Amino acid sequence: MTAGTQNSVAGAGRTIISVDAMGGDKGPATVVAGISHSAKKNPDLGFILHGPRAELEPLVAKRRNLAGRCEIRDAAEIVKMEDKPAHVLRHGRDTSMWSALESVRNGEARVCVSCGNTGALMLLSVVRLRKLKGIYRPAIGVLWPSKNPQGFNIMLDGGADIRADAKDLMQYALMGTSYARNGFGLTRPRVGLLNVGTEEHKGRAELKEAFDLIAANAKHSDFEFVGFVEGRDLPGTRCDVIVTDGFTGNVALKTAEGIATLFSDLLREAFQYSFLSRFASVLAYPSLRRLKKRIDPRRANGGVFLGLNGTVVKSHGAADATGVSAAVKLAFELAQSGFTEKLAARVASATMLDQDGETDNSDNGDSE
Amino acid sequence: MTAGTQNSVAGAGRTIISVDAMGGDKGPATVVAGISHSAKKNPDLGFILHGPRAELEPLVAKRRNLAGRCEIRDAAEIVKMEDKPAHVLRHGRDTSMWSALESVRNGEARVCVSCGNTGALMLLSVVRLRKLKGIYRPAIGVLWPSKNPQGFNIMLDGGADIRADAKDLMQYALMGTSYARNGFGLTRPRVGLLNVGTEEHKGRAELKEAFDLIAANAKHSDFEFVGFVEGRDLPGTRCDVIVTDGFTGNVALKTAEGIATLFSDLLREAFQYSFLSRFASVLAYPSLRRLKKRIDPRRANGGVFLGLNGTVVKSHGAADATGVSAAVKLAFELAQSGFTEKLAARVASATMLDQDGETDNSDNGDSE
Repeated sequence: MTAGTQNSVAGAGRTIISVDAMGGDKGPATVVAGISHSAKKNPDLGFILHGPRAELEPLVAKRRNLAGRCEIRDAAEIVKMEDKPAHVLRHGRDTSMWSALESVRNGEARVCVSCGNTGALMLLSVVRLRKLKGIYRPAIGVLWPSKNPQGFNIMLDGGADIRADAKDLMQYALMGTSYARNGFGLTRPRVGLLNVGTEEHKGRAELKEAFDLIAANAKHSDFEFVGFVEGRDLPGTRCDVIVTDGFTGNVALKTAEGIATLFSDLLREAFQYSFLSRFASVLAYPSLRRLKKRIDPRRANGGVFLGLNGTVVKSHGAADATGVSAAVKLAFELAQSGFTEKLAARVASATMLDQDGETDNSDNGDSE
Repeated sequence: MTAGTQNSVAGAGRTIISVDAMGGDKGPATVVAGISHSAKKNPDLGFILHGPRAELEPLVAKRRNLAGRCEIRDAAEIVKMEDKPAHVLRHGRDTSMWSALESVRNGEARVCVSCGNTGALMLLSVVRLRKLKGIYRPAIGVLWPSKNPQGFNIMLDGGADIRADAKDLMQYALMGTSYARNGFGLTRPRVGLLNVGTEEHKGRAELKEAFDLIAANAKHSDFEFVGFVEGRDLPGTRCDVIVTDGFTGNVALKTAEGIATLFSDLLREAFQYSFLSRFASVLAYPSLRRLKKRIDPRRANGGVFLGLNGTVVKSHGAADATGVSAAVKLAFELAQSGFTEKLAARVASATMLDQDGETDNSDNGDSE
């Protein structure tokens, strides 16, 4: 639409991030504060910001460091949290979410960031950006705090699709491996398949089938398959990548959020108990802040949609400016690493393996 | 076998708990320490302890407060954690687990407590104690710490069965309601159905069907149905009882354990950081101990098998003496409340409702 402006935000070697200003619970002011924070930290960033121009212009004008680095792309409508994905697909052409994805589709931006309705964002992403060749079901890769050297584990699917059959789970293993390599520089990621126990006879039939398929691909691809893992391994050190369906992944993720909230509430109450405990809390403050920084979900904010022609970072709906900034940082790093291209190559090689019948055997065997 | 001894442990008005001494990871000494702790606190408790007599006798003899209150029932074999449930059912007649359930079956004890293999304990319980009339699928009710007035929420199924269809989930709601009434004295428990979102159009088909069935029963039974809830509500305050299938429930439970372990590790590290932080940790110790006491899983140790003719409390495999003692306390309270009888009455009334077609409509409607 306004190619002239876009050229200016691109600047010399800037990486352009397409940002949906309207998706978050906290409104566009928080999104603008977040990208302003990112712009301050990283001179190589430029933005295309999507939403109602009249609302966005004064917000951007207030942030001097965004001058010349943030183009506003007018989009009158907003995808609401309660909108059904199929409705957004049919009637959402004028929404900020649609417009934000369009900038990735037409090559103006490398990555799209949105805090909006996950289901709608996923469906629009799949339809507008299309699935990578050979991918059955795209997934959301999310990060868990852990004591592994990289500080995080990757879980997928975090909630893109409530279903996943054995072949999907095998591809999630490949996608997670690619993400771990490009996001954390792990040369040989350890992959686990989430189940109710580590014994091979436990769990649903499709999990036993997925176990065989993932094991067959580990030999040819470059990851270590540690087998079945349990819920406690999501924030644990047994593996770097945990594979599960989107229903289970979403419940696990929100359970962890709930536990974290409960602990932080109870810790606050415990330190309010008496004069001595309030005094202790002052002294303990730096230690507690170190802990908080280590596990702060805002620092790991940003589920990444895996398996599409283009990278989409889904920020938490309730993300504050720090959260938005973390999502932009992740988007920048993935754009820089050429992540999508590397993932495409990996899936292509696994698909070939699949086509020559080596893994397909597991599909037609007794386990069905 | 030794009815004379049994008469003596029963004493005047004692409630007899049947305890599998051999199930836990920490061995029988820990179990004996746990029941000794319970015996000290509660003079109305008596025990029948199952396991190899030669091993148990010296352990019990060392605990003076168990004299005359703990009969040993010789059982030579042990169910191991890796044993398949079906194998235990066929070949497990001489195990301590089998023997412990037998004491409930023949009426010598009101409740059975075991730290052993959950799958084997569940299968043996179902086969030996039989399902309550009208129950399709028994479930494990587990406790989550929460800021609700009662201090805990009840989730079921915690992992008895990886499957659950809409009718099972409806019965879980009834069983959870009964447990909440008898365990926590809640007159009108709030029940939620676990899903990936609170919107009615989200989630799997069987969940939408279960939603209608539970809603239909809430009108006639005495609970409030709050609708779909999310993982974060498991330790939250939106409801008192959360209903889900055993696969999802088990993953959520172990995820929470993993997060709790990670937090406690990181908190310890944060307080080891410097001289000042180590000093602060000394002052903060009472506050942290208060927090720990509030969320200590050992205090809420004991999943309860719901839907059987008799009460079985499954203690955590890694339970220490405090954990075993907490499981015994729960067993005692449920035995005292006549929980099984009340649950049977509730299920019977719901089944009648089902038979006269009022809830069955939802089953045959468009939602399939």
